Amino acid sequence: MTYCVGILLNDGIVMASDSRTNAGVDHVACYTKMFNFCWPGKRQMTIVSSGNLATTQAVISRLQLENDASEKKRSSLKNSDNLEECAAHLGKVCQGVREQHEKNKNGHQPLYEASFILGGQIKGQSPGLYLVYPEGNYIAPSPYNPFLQIGETKYGKPILDRFITKETSLDHAARCALVSLDSAMRANLSVGPPLDLILYRLDAFDGGTLSRFPENHPYLTDLKKSWNKGLKRIFKRLPRFEWEETPENRDPRLEG
Amino acid sequence: MTYCVGILLNDGIVMASDSRTNAGVDHVACYTKMFNFCWPGKRQMTIVSSGNLATTQAVISRLQLENDASEKKRSSLKNSDNLEECAAHLGKVCQGVREQHEKNKNGHQPLYEASFILGGQIKGQSPGLYLVYPEGNYIAPSPYNPFLQIGETKYGKPILDRFITKETSLDHAARCALVSLDSAMRANLSVGPPLDLILYRLDAFDGGTLSRFPENHPYLTDLKKSWNKGLKRIFKRLPRFEWEETPENRDPRLEG
Repeated sequence: MTYCVGILLNDGIVMASDSRTNAGVDHVACYTKMFNFCWPGKRQMTIVSSGNLATTQAVISRLQLENDASEKKRSSLKNSDNLEECAAHLGKVCQGVREQHEKNKNGHQPLYEASFILGGQIKGQSPGLYLVYPEGNYIAPSPYNPFLQIGETKYGKPILDRFITKETSLDHAARCALVSLDSAMRANLSVGPPLDLILYRLDAFDGGTLSRFPENHPYLTDLKKSWNKGLKRIFKRLPRFEWEETPENRDPRLEG
Repeated sequence: MTYCVGILLNDGIVMASDSRTNAGVDHVACYTKMFNFCWPGKRQMTIVSSGNLATTQAVISRLQLENDASEKKRSSLKNSDNLEECAAHLGKVCQGVREQHEKNKNGHQPLYEASFILGGQIKGQSPGLYLVYPEGNYIAPSPYNPFLQIGETKYGKPILDRFITKETSLDHAARCALVSLDSAMRANLSVGPPLDLILYRLDAFDGGTLSRFPENHPYLTDLKKSWNKGLKRIFKRLPRFEWEETPENRDPRLEG
């Protein structure tokens, strides 16, 4: 499995992904699932991927070849008119890769599925974020819950539900994404470090701030420790049940 | 869907469940999923259920009929020698109910599945907790993660992972269960109030402390508010990224 998240904010975009790939518990490996594309001053985008590794690698490799090609291909990350076209193109490329391999299989089981989140900005346009489904169709996030997730999404969703709005700052959202990834890692072995994180500031077109956090990275350790300690503190201070109100801790002013 | 949790502690047992039942979004209803059985001074147990409503209702009804029967049936919640036998019996009753209805269907789809958590204590024995699978087999929790979940389990798991050990007090574990249910309710419409909560103190055999929290119950509102406020506070205080350390907030003692 995998867990990736993308967040679309007024200030820009945050995307984060884990790096664990597994085909059964005896075949675990570490691959980055984040791929960054930048044409400085013009456009920048990031794709995070989940699903069949052969499919996602082939898709990214085709997209990179298109970008590097000398002829100007209209449908490509480099030349598409807008981000939605990029998302549609990503879906199409993925369909192409799957068709090539699935035709060799009997039956109709969708074996080589992959999903993606594509986020970024093209100069003169608003930043955008898309979840591209295995079928090649795609959605943008709701303005009320401006994030998208793929892979092992549930463990890390409550924290995003609570904190992420369009107004959240990039840095806060980035911390929130890391905590969300940490929750998924604690709960599920198929999500694992290093964690990749990128922040795109609105209209910067500078390739963003990219960080990679291995398991024992001092910042990640600090963050986890601080989060855990904080949780323990608020947990201890949660309101008591009625039946816990023994005479000793009753407020004397309320006594008759 | 549903979300139920059972926690086995040194001090006793905590169990909690939501009350939403749905067959599609246009068929949503409210049913308790918690069933308490107590023979004061002798044995007490609680079953929480998830899955097909007709199955779970039939199972509970059969178990109750057995308990009320005048003849002493050896395999019943009332007479089984130990809790593991109760769990095995629950699994068997569930199999019986399913067979009766599934034989009327073509194909081999398991349509009328249900899972249960059974927790309780029989006098002279240790308290026990079992997850009974749709197939009728069952497991006890690990001493390292002494809780079991059924239904929509993932959203509420991180909080249990972080806080629950065998040593946690009953009241703390009960708060943790409510926060876990709240996380699931926020993330998934198929989990909904009222919340049922029961605490069994070790060796008490008094039927436990049973509470029901409707959506706007003052304690639940307080708990949610306190948790949310606390989370926001620790979130604000999480360590800053390196790039956030602007000259203004750098510690002057560290400057050259």
